[in-house]
Amino acid sequence: MGKHDVLILLGSDSDLPVVKDALDFFKGMDVSFKIDISSAHRNPEKTMVYAKNARNEGFRVIIAVAGMAAHLPGVIASHTTLPVIGVPSGSGSLNGLDALLSIVSMPKGIPVATVGINAARNAAILACEILSIKDENIGEKLEKMKEELRQQNDESAIRIEQYLQDL
Amino acid sequence: MGKHDVLILLGSDSDLPVVKDALDFFKGMDVSFKIDISSAHRNPEKTMVYAKNARNEGFRVIIAVAGMAAHLPGVIASHTTLPVIGVPSGSGSLNGLDALLSIVSMPKGIPVATVGINAARNAAILACEILSIKDENIGEKLEKMKEELRQQNDESAIRIEQYLQDL
Amino acid sequence: MGKHDVLILLGSDSDLPVVKDALDFFKGMDVSFKIDISSAHRNPEKTMVYAKNARNEGFRVIIAVAGMAAHLPGVIASHTTLPVIGVPSGSGSLNGLDALLSIVSMPKGIPVATVGINAARNAAILACEILSIKDENIGEKLEKMKEELRQQNDESAIRIEQYLQDL
Amino acid sequence: MGKHDVLILLGSDSDLPVVKDALDFFKGMDVSFKIDISSAHRNPEKTMVYAKNARNEGFRVIIAVAGMAAHLPGVIASHTTLPVIGVPSGSGSLNGLDALLSIVSMPKGIPVATVGINAARNAAILACEILSIKDENIGEKLEKMKEELRQQNDESAIRIEQYLQDL
Amino acid sequence: MGKHDVLILLGSDSDLPVVKDALDFFKGMDVSFKIDISSAHRNPEKTMVYAKNARNEGFRVIIAVAGMAAHLPGVIASHTTLPVIGVPSGSGSLNGLDALLSIVSMPKGIPVATVGINAARNAAILACEILSIKDENIGEKLEKMKEELRQQNDESAIRIEQYLQDL
Amino acid sequence: MGKHDVLILLGSDSDLPVVKDALDFFKGMDVSFKIDISSAHRNPEKTMVYAKNARNEGFRVIIAVAGMAAHLPGVIASHTTLPVIGVPSGSGSLNGLDALLSIVSMPKGIPVATVGINAARNAAILACEILSIKDENIGEKLEKMKEELRQQNDESAIRIEQYLQDL
Amino acid sequence: MGKHDVLILLGSDSDLPVVKDALDFFKGMDVSFKIDISSAHRNPEKTMVYAKNARNEGFRVIIAVAGMAAHLPGVIASHTTLPVIGVPSGSGSLNGLDALLSIVSMPKGIPVATVGINAARNAAILACEILSIKDENIGEKLEKMKEELRQQNDESAIRIEQYLQDL
Amino acid sequence: MGKHDVLILLGSDSDLPVVKDALDFFKGMDVSFKIDISSAHRNPEKTMVYAKNARNEGFRVIIAVAGMAAHLPGVIASHTTLPVIGVPSGSGSLNGLDALLSIVSMPKGIPVATVGINAARNAAILACEILSIKDENIGEKLEKMKEELRQQNDESAIRIEQYLQDL
Repeated sequence: MGKHDVLILLGSDSDLPVVKDALDFFKGMDVSFKIDISSAHRNPEKTMVYAKNARNEGFRVIIAVAGMAAHLPGVIASHTTLPVIGVPSGSGSLNGLDALLSIVSMPKGIPVATVGINAARNAAILACEILSIKDENIGEKLEKMKEELRQQNDESAIRIEQYLQDL
Repeated sequence: MGKHDVLILLGSDSDLPVVKDALDFFKGMDVSFKIDISSAHRNPEKTMVYAKNARNEGFRVIIAVAGMAAHLPGVIASHTTLPVIGVPSGSGSLNGLDALLSIVSMPKGIPVATVGINAARNAAILACEILSIKDENIGEKLEKMKEELRQQNDESAIRIEQYLQDL
Repeated sequence: MGKHDVLILLGSDSDLPVVKDALDFFKGMDVSFKIDISSAHRNPEKTMVYAKNARNEGFRVIIAVAGMAAHLPGVIASHTTLPVIGVPSGSGSLNGLDALLSIVSMPKGIPVATVGINAARNAAILACEILSIKDENIGEKLEKMKEELRQQNDESAIRIEQYLQDL
Repeated sequence: MGKHDVLILLGSDSDLPVVKDALDFFKGMDVSFKIDISSAHRNPEKTMVYAKNARNEGFRVIIAVAGMAAHLPGVIASHTTLPVIGVPSGSGSLNGLDALLSIVSMPKGIPVATVGINAARNAAILACEILSIKDENIGEKLEKMKEELRQQNDESAIRIEQYLQDL
Repeated sequence: MGKHDVLILLGSDSDLPVVKDALDFFKGMDVSFKIDISSAHRNPEKTMVYAKNARNEGFRVIIAVAGMAAHLPGVIASHTTLPVIGVPSGSGSLNGLDALLSIVSMPKGIPVATVGINAARNAAILACEILSIKDENIGEKLEKMKEELRQQNDESAIRIEQYLQDL
Repeated sequence: MGKHDVLILLGSDSDLPVVKDALDFFKGMDVSFKIDISSAHRNPEKTMVYAKNARNEGFRVIIAVAGMAAHLPGVIASHTTLPVIGVPSGSGSLNGLDALLSIVSMPKGIPVATVGINAARNAAILACEILSIKDENIGEKLEKMKEELRQQNDESAIRIEQYLQDL
Repeated sequence: MGKHDVLILLGSDSDLPVVKDALDFFKGMDVSFKIDISSAHRNPEKTMVYAKNARNEGFRVIIAVAGMAAHLPGVIASHTTLPVIGVPSGSGSLNGLDALLSIVSMPKGIPVATVGINAARNAAILACEILSIKDENIGEKLEKMKEELRQQNDESAIRIEQYLQDL
Repeated sequence: MGKHDVLILLGSDSDLPVVKDALDFFKGMDVSFKIDISSAHRNPEKTMVYAKNARNEGFRVIIAVAGMAAHLPGVIASHTTLPVIGVPSGSGSLNGLDALLSIVSMPKGIPVATVGINAARNAAILACEILSIKDENIGEKLEKMKEELRQQNDESAIRIEQYLQDL
């Protein structure tokens, strides 16, 4: 694949803690990404240029994180035919409910693949699932991760034994 | 003032019935407007051009009507320093709650003057109130309208008499 | 690609009208799909078998439509590493708000790409965007569709002229 | 009755503090329970096996605790005809509203007996009420507990006297 | 078992259409029930007497249907240690959201097994699941019903074929 | 008037901090009150007795404070024709929204005068307003309090001067 | 008592159908009322004059009906120390949720006795309960009404018999 | 322009921290303002006088900040034809959702330009945008501010580099 498979855009640098989980996941998967801050409202041209050129520059998936009115994912989606994953950040007085509705309720013709509030890691996994339809390697790594989730779940049963004894 | 004082942009022609009330109001006030359909998502460049040039073309206020994810008012506001009035349309499964939150929860630096769901007439009145700080004529007409509202309210007292007798 | 690129599963045959829009879109794009009804609750084994075998049977993307508690997309996602797109249907007393939250709030490790309430057409477009990272043909068709959206938006400006004259 | 009357499954070990109250209650009632962690999404097979075998292994009631998308109770209910009690945990940005709606809005044919957000103790009491239709002993203990609730309520009147004097 | 296994109380006779589905289900299962209208607010003594005597009169489960403030299930639960199933009816301006929250958010000590808005049939199934821990017959019938749900789901696949041909 | 004019009932002693503001107000107004804890669910008979006898014992108004399912005000109202004021307490995961809806959505025939979440002081003022229709003394004191509110509001203007200088 | 005991103010004549139920109730109770339309926004002076003079003109209670932003009850309450009952009307896109919150969330010092959405009849009953603390006659009539509610509830049991036979 | 261009009214001095951001902005823009505390409920006459005289005293825009029932902006708007900007403050148990709906859902004829919860700075920017239609100077300063927002957004890209290296 290209130099970077995934483009990650944040509406504000206050979203960096939210997205950290995603960066860790991509590193563990050896998936290359580019990350930048590009507000849909404070820097609309930069955002548009990113979105318009993303396919030609070899990106396969775009992840956009934004809070409150959260227009970033939708604005990007209006300028590209790459899959755009939207992550509502839980900032603001409404804890992300506004961001969730702003991202998911897109009009006919311009979808955004929305994940849960602050769920940047799930956005990264979804991006890898998308990449896996072209790159079998990633598919195999995802299967391993799924297996590990299963094991972690089992191992927590051991902790529960401890918990019950301490009760 | 310029050729047109108010620019009205709709996200979709399905918003025309919502905005009709505003057009009637502007006609009654002799305020000139230009209206067009320019989706933030389906036609982002056209929208951007409208927003960027609005001040230079002599517009004083922009009204943007949109439903669901309702990015139109915010996208316009990101490209202009004219006051932008956002009208959430009550379409979709959530009856406009998503549009309301998408329009009103704008990030620091890029305000949208939000009115109620489907409240296009109030958007028009607000636009005239804004114009009135430059044009005293409009201010006087608004005072008259306010007086008429008062009278209509009084006249409905007559109807209530009738209503009570019919009870 | 395989015999069918997209697997569409519905929680109930009452979701067929919701999904029709998606089927039309796939036909217009010449993207092959298989559609079946397989409730997460009434037929969990069938659902599990579909999900577990989907990748090996050559599917690239799964679309799952469900209302109310709407577990279908998440249950499928728990058994596959293919991208799963969830469509909340707007049935029930809460108009799809329950389905939206049930689909989007997935736990860490198991994402569902959620689109808007009843937005099956957007699910189909998103599926094609995902397929486009492997199949350039689909990418080109999506670009054409985006161009057509732009034109339709422009053409509606003509209708607005008519509307204003009829006012 | 069997070796264990109640099966308690948690979606994640982060739900242990929520469920502690229930464990205490069961101990006070001398009702035997088995508790394990078995995510509907991270460990769907384990969950399915638990649910399918629960009746044959002598369980009478299942309690499932889960947050956010909270599919666990519904997934279990799809594989058993034992009564399933669902406890929405109040984790995540929406404080459990998503979990509550995901658990309670089950489709026709597959009920989940839903209690309040984080209300694991009430789930335990409900489980005992269900067991009491077979085991009169438990019914009598519940009557005593109800009587104690009454007394505690009365005793708090004494505290109020103190409170008023300190005012 | 006793003369009637299930007691069904409605807050108002306007809830009869909601509950019809439950009556049909009980008849199909040969489970005997008594049904009456007894508002928590308009007829609190009658309601209290029903609740207090229910266990002694041989009832095993109580189903209470109510809308809006929907206190009926909770009021009954305060007077009995039988399992009480609450059905929020979707009446009123808030479509049952108020009833759902009023029924499910019970305080510590007094649980109500809440099902979905208008989900009286699920309440009936839950009641049978509860009865099944004492009466194996009912358990077997429930297994058959579950199997039929599976088959109905499969049969709807045939309808989908028809649907696709008609497209 | 009688020995006590106002009866205050709390669902739980955890509501005491909420109600303190009301007690202070009544003391300032020289209005006598009786306060007790009497849960609608844990102590329904005591609650019923209080409600049934309230008028004969000389009470004029009842204030009931409760959280979550918050049935207390409605249950009291079902047993009396005295005005009942309901105060939703903001406890629980939904911050009092459940309590508010449970208290305010009463069925036809049984009103509860609902005030805001945690607004016990407003409940006390409302109680005094009600008493004032019989006792002119209280009416005069309320007028004074209203005048003081006005003055406090004016005095805060002085603080604003300070605030601006410190800016 | 005075010429009229109750003052009823409506924000708009579109609220007349909502309030009809209250007028009927007052007639049945022989309680005299004055009704007028006086919008808080369109006719603020008239509203203020009504509120300020209400006590001196002999009114004992004020009922205010309003929808959406629904400031009428609060504005009246700011000008009087009579008890003010607020009725949120269920108009507008949010079905009265906005009106309910606008009316009930009053600041410290200025309570409004809020009843349910469209619950004008309950407002009338509450008004009579308030009047009953001065006029025993009304108290007795309310007791009769409560008895009738009980009987109506019982009579609906007869209808249920019919319903079951027709099943 | 007049002595002061902008009038800022707060419902309570607890809103001062919310509005500080706006004061800073006006100072940076050299826009003169008058600020006072004038509750719609505790001091309705003062509020009315402010609103009625605002235009004659040379104000061009009014900003009103209020929480919970938040009637202040609407009450002001009922007495003036100047543009009124409403800022819902996020106080109270509902985090400002009640204030937002109370401010934005104004009836036909009386608009309030609503900004986001606690978004006083955006209110100030919107006020300047309105002033800019008369005063080109302000328009130019707004353009500069918009340019600075762009630059700040770019500079945060530098911080992201640092962030990634520290990961």
